Amino acid sequence: MINIGIIGAGRIGKVHTQSICNFVQGAKVAAIADPVMTEETAAWARGLGIAKISKDYKDILGDPGIDAVLICSSTDTHSQISLEAIAAGKHIFCEKPIDHDVGRINAVLAALAAPEAERLKYMVGFNRRFDHNFRAIRAAVESGQVGKVELVKITSRDPAPPSAEYAARSGGIFLDMAIHDFDMVRYLSGEEVESVYVQPAVLVDPAIGEAGDYDSAVITLKLASGALAVIDNSRRCAYGYDQRAEVFGSEGSAASRNDAASNVRVATADGVLAEKPLYFFLERYMQAFATEVTAFCDAVVNDTPLSVTAQDGLAATLIALAAKESAKTGLPVKV
Amino acid sequence: MINIGIIGAGRIGKVHTQSICNFVQGAKVAAIADPVMTEETAAWARGLGIAKISKDYKDILGDPGIDAVLICSSTDTHSQISLEAIAAGKHIFCEKPIDHDVGRINAVLAALAAPEAERLKYMVGFNRRFDHNFRAIRAAVESGQVGKVELVKITSRDPAPPSAEYAARSGGIFLDMAIHDFDMVRYLSGEEVESVYVQPAVLVDPAIGEAGDYDSAVITLKLASGALAVIDNSRRCAYGYDQRAEVFGSEGSAASRNDAASNVRVATADGVLAEKPLYFFLERYMQAFATEVTAFCDAVVNDTPLSVTAQDGLAATLIALAAKESAKTGLPVKV
Amino acid sequence: MINIGIIGAGRIGKVHTQSICNFVQGAKVAAIADPVMTEETAAWARGLGIAKISKDYKDILGDPGIDAVLICSSTDTHSQISLEAIAAGKHIFCEKPIDHDVGRINAVLAALAAPEAERLKYMVGFNRRFDHNFRAIRAAVESGQVGKVELVKITSRDPAPPSAEYAARSGGIFLDMAIHDFDMVRYLSGEEVESVYVQPAVLVDPAIGEAGDYDSAVITLKLASGALAVIDNSRRCAYGYDQRAEVFGSEGSAASRNDAASNVRVATADGVLAEKPLYFFLERYMQAFATEVTAFCDAVVNDTPLSVTAQDGLAATLIALAAKESAKTGLPVKV
Amino acid sequence: MINIGIIGAGRIGKVHTQSICNFVQGAKVAAIADPVMTEETAAWARGLGIAKISKDYKDILGDPGIDAVLICSSTDTHSQISLEAIAAGKHIFCEKPIDHDVGRINAVLAALAAPEAERLKYMVGFNRRFDHNFRAIRAAVESGQVGKVELVKITSRDPAPPSAEYAARSGGIFLDMAIHDFDMVRYLSGEEVESVYVQPAVLVDPAIGEAGDYDSAVITLKLASGALAVIDNSRRCAYGYDQRAEVFGSEGSAASRNDAASNVRVATADGVLAEKPLYFFLERYMQAFATEVTAFCDAVVNDTPLSVTAQDGLAATLIALAAKESAKTGLPVKV
Repeated sequence: MINIGIIGAGRIGKVHTQSICNFVQGAKVAAIADPVMTEETAAWARGLGIAKISKDYKDILGDPGIDAVLICSSTDTHSQISLEAIAAGKHIFCEKPIDHDVGRINAVLAALAAPEAERLKYMVGFNRRFDHNFRAIRAAVESGQVGKVELVKITSRDPAPPSAEYAARSGGIFLDMAIHDFDMVRYLSGEEVESVYVQPAVLVDPAIGEAGDYDSAVITLKLASGALAVIDNSRRCAYGYDQRAEVFGSEGSAASRNDAASNVRVATADGVLAEKPLYFFLERYMQAFATEVTAFCDAVVNDTPLSVTAQDGLAATLIALAAKESAKTGLPVKV
Repeated sequence: MINIGIIGAGRIGKVHTQSICNFVQGAKVAAIADPVMTEETAAWARGLGIAKISKDYKDILGDPGIDAVLICSSTDTHSQISLEAIAAGKHIFCEKPIDHDVGRINAVLAALAAPEAERLKYMVGFNRRFDHNFRAIRAAVESGQVGKVELVKITSRDPAPPSAEYAARSGGIFLDMAIHDFDMVRYLSGEEVESVYVQPAVLVDPAIGEAGDYDSAVITLKLASGALAVIDNSRRCAYGYDQRAEVFGSEGSAASRNDAASNVRVATADGVLAEKPLYFFLERYMQAFATEVTAFCDAVVNDTPLSVTAQDGLAATLIALAAKESAKTGLPVKV
Repeated sequence: MINIGIIGAGRIGKVHTQSICNFVQGAKVAAIADPVMTEETAAWARGLGIAKISKDYKDILGDPGIDAVLICSSTDTHSQISLEAIAAGKHIFCEKPIDHDVGRINAVLAALAAPEAERLKYMVGFNRRFDHNFRAIRAAVESGQVGKVELVKITSRDPAPPSAEYAARSGGIFLDMAIHDFDMVRYLSGEEVESVYVQPAVLVDPAIGEAGDYDSAVITLKLASGALAVIDNSRRCAYGYDQRAEVFGSEGSAASRNDAASNVRVATADGVLAEKPLYFFLERYMQAFATEVTAFCDAVVNDTPLSVTAQDGLAATLIALAAKESAKTGLPVKV
Repeated sequence: MINIGIIGAGRIGKVHTQSICNFVQGAKVAAIADPVMTEETAAWARGLGIAKISKDYKDILGDPGIDAVLICSSTDTHSQISLEAIAAGKHIFCEKPIDHDVGRINAVLAALAAPEAERLKYMVGFNRRFDHNFRAIRAAVESGQVGKVELVKITSRDPAPPSAEYAARSGGIFLDMAIHDFDMVRYLSGEEVESVYVQPAVLVDPAIGEAGDYDSAVITLKLASGALAVIDNSRRCAYGYDQRAEVFGSEGSAASRNDAASNVRVATADGVLAEKPLYFFLERYMQAFATEVTAFCDAVVNDTPLSVTAQDGLAATLIALAAKESAKTGLPVKV
């Protein structure tokens, strides 16, 4: 039985806490910390039997009874808390991204490479790698059913745009949103990305453009083997969260569709109506969030390798930064 | 090159004429007859290059240059014209049904069994046997993919009910509509039907009930091997012509869906909308009509066996009559 | 917060226990009893924090701290334990069926009708009513999208047949398997069943026939409004658990498909391959099991009406008994 | 009734001839010419009742009885024969492309702009505009269902690669294959293309690369409104001809799937198998070929405007040439 501390009690912190309480055998949430620990959140935590409730994550890092932490705090704190948690000898699950700054990601990698940290697990929260549909595509690729990979295609559209203010603060569409898709290209193909070209656009909200960001993009990538990948992103999708992928290869293709709340078709004089895709990431990836946290706990308990590491976090960030530069220069950029 | 005479220039007569002109190599429509030969129809026939246009089908039967006839006249004339055409030594394609009266069907069978008629082809127009989807189900059954047949399921719903007057005159829902489904059970299973039970209902139009007929039914059939079949019929379907089939067996199932004018899905905030099924038999079975007439002509030209014979016409009629009795008595009836 | 006792720690008892622990706010599993309480099961129960672990369900009924019980024991004990639990003043969730004997079901109904039991909740475990797909069909019916109901169609096929010995002991295919489908006809249509006709068959395992049961059936039902229903059952389905439903009405239809582990399509030179349906009820109805237990707990906590009552258990059993008679006599039977 | 001359009796020439004979009222194929007029082809033409059979297309252009010509000869002759046919006062349907050389296309446009040619119809054979699925997408766009267009996505993969020798001679993948997709972007969006970026690859056949061409590509386009488009091409697709499109906009999306020979699903222990897409363009676009030729004949007979003009031919060629340059330079190119 390992004891886990949750750092950050926002939406995703709560999702992970609940997943561990509900689904993970052999792990227990022993502490939770958030600078804004409302009474409501504290009551919710007490209801789940969490013993230590704090406003300061250092209370968790300093607790020798805690084996592992989940860093679910705001993005700009991820790398700093990672470094402190490594120093405190905790296993770490860190929500993506580790940082927008490559130097700071490298500092985390360096800390992890130190002899005293060798035994520590460090996992980045690329939850989509644990989605049932994307896993089935990856399984088809690994089984050889699609042959040699020639093209990875990803459609990734959010239901509603963020505020322009958030868009700017988040690091922009490539570091905030497309980073998941960059990781998915690497996951599905099993390859590194060599170069990237972006055709960006502001089609949804002019204020996002005024804030220096984009809300739409078509991104072309070249992979190490010479294979291609293409991503289309939009910050607004009238019919919900559109999350599809396809891998095309020498022997065929494997492609996923969206999930909906039911598969019922209603046929009337107006046509045949099916449900929209699940609305957003909490609905679509609820199972994936549970599965990824379970995978982290299992790796800690059994001391087995992780399938998503800090290196994966770095790799996706490097692609995102190259994409950002391509969007600015209008030219293809090497990663 | 064979010469064909069309008897009956109604809707289906015109469809077959056009199919032969457009698609059938080695056959030519040389004559057409209809007691109501309008000037419009005559002009249409002349436009197709049909040499002989008449009000009397005997003009066709008496013409030694005609090799084969298509009987597309009203149902109550099918058996009589069949007998005359056999006597005249013509190959015959007869729209279903041959007759509602078993005695008269048997008279046609007897005439065909005479030595001088042995060389004649006689095909009944069960067009659905030539539908691409039903053929693919049959192919899966024949290939062994579904294993030993255990259940045949057919959904067959017309878009709009006939008048009560037509319903009565047509011989009723079993002889007029379900007869196609009875043939489909035999075609898909490759088996004879032993008994039938009908749960009929009048749910669409009370006037159809007052005329002594039904507009809805669930029909259960027992096949010679012990396998089962079930048909659901309705005379009215708000979303168009619903024509689906499934064969379930020891190794799996083969099932078809409806066809639509396009496969486009439009996703909006209201859901994901696909097109309705094709409206009615002329749309859904247009290709099947052409394929069946081609099969008839090919059999005549090459003197090869037919896949749908007068015996098939008799078999389906016997099931329909048993169904009619079951609906009346409320009991299962042996065919 | 209510305290729940679990009676029966077999497969479904464990599923419900886990669901309450994971998902149900406001309820706690305080006790579990099973005549065969293995050390493994006891350890599992302790791991979930269940305080009282016993071999005798009377320990639960006699505990004044327990508010409600889930009867998950073997079928032949359901009605007796129900009566005792009512006498002990416990709310009851009873796995289907209450009993195969109508007299004993009526005894439970009578006990519930007594003034001192009026405040008790009694729910029967028709889990499929809580399935996301069937709920979406029912919602379409209730919204008026399909108009006046004319036909309910249910396909219900188990992946693998039970032993002949189980088939006989279980009360037969109608009381053991089709009873879920009878309830589904009532649920989807919102109507009572008036009569039933069964065309049974032994197509899967002759030993099941020798034991006096059937393994295949087509069941036709007539509903109170005159609408029709049809169920096709098989005890063996090569591609898994086939669970589909359709409601057809004056304005259209609502139909569900099977669920699979992913929606990925793999296209190769051999065709386009999708995954099989989820294997069996634990996979397909996992969410439904959790939802139904949550509904029960909510009704107890908030003293609100239940959506599935003992009367629903009786109604489905009466249809099953009529079906059994129809299979024997070969005639339609009034319910 | 108009008289048509067919120039070029290869595969597509024969398809168009047959379409006119079968489906087009008011038009007649009066002549056919091909430098390699085999006895087999001549016999086939005689069987269709074509009066004039020649080795020299000038016999057709010189015949005052011919109203319109279909130019189905080899690509390098299209513009020259177009010019001669305009001079001869014939209406022209020209298979795509008019030419690979912009100067020669402009010569055709100039000839059509001359006063004496004003009455002539000139249509380019972008057959996909007449496909039922793509038309349904366009209809959804025009109806406003998808809102303001933001992204057009096209997947276009041929079943099998051409020889390297053909690939080189054909003008390359952009002028030979992607040109259809460039036209489709314009058709579906109703917009002009402003710039293009190509990420090309040689993944299928190294010999195609050695011949100076590519066999795979991801093509990003920017449209006049600022909307985006993306095309993925491959010269080889293991599961047949993959032809899909999607338009995404502010209110939703409209997307098409591939067509197959049947919609039957075979479910077995191995999964649920559907048919592959129709093999290649003759299968997939058979109906579209007939519809486009009908549209041409109707426009000639009724003197109505054409939906695909020589300007459309020029526009697609200009995009293809820009794509070719982008592939060479690795940079985005303005059209």
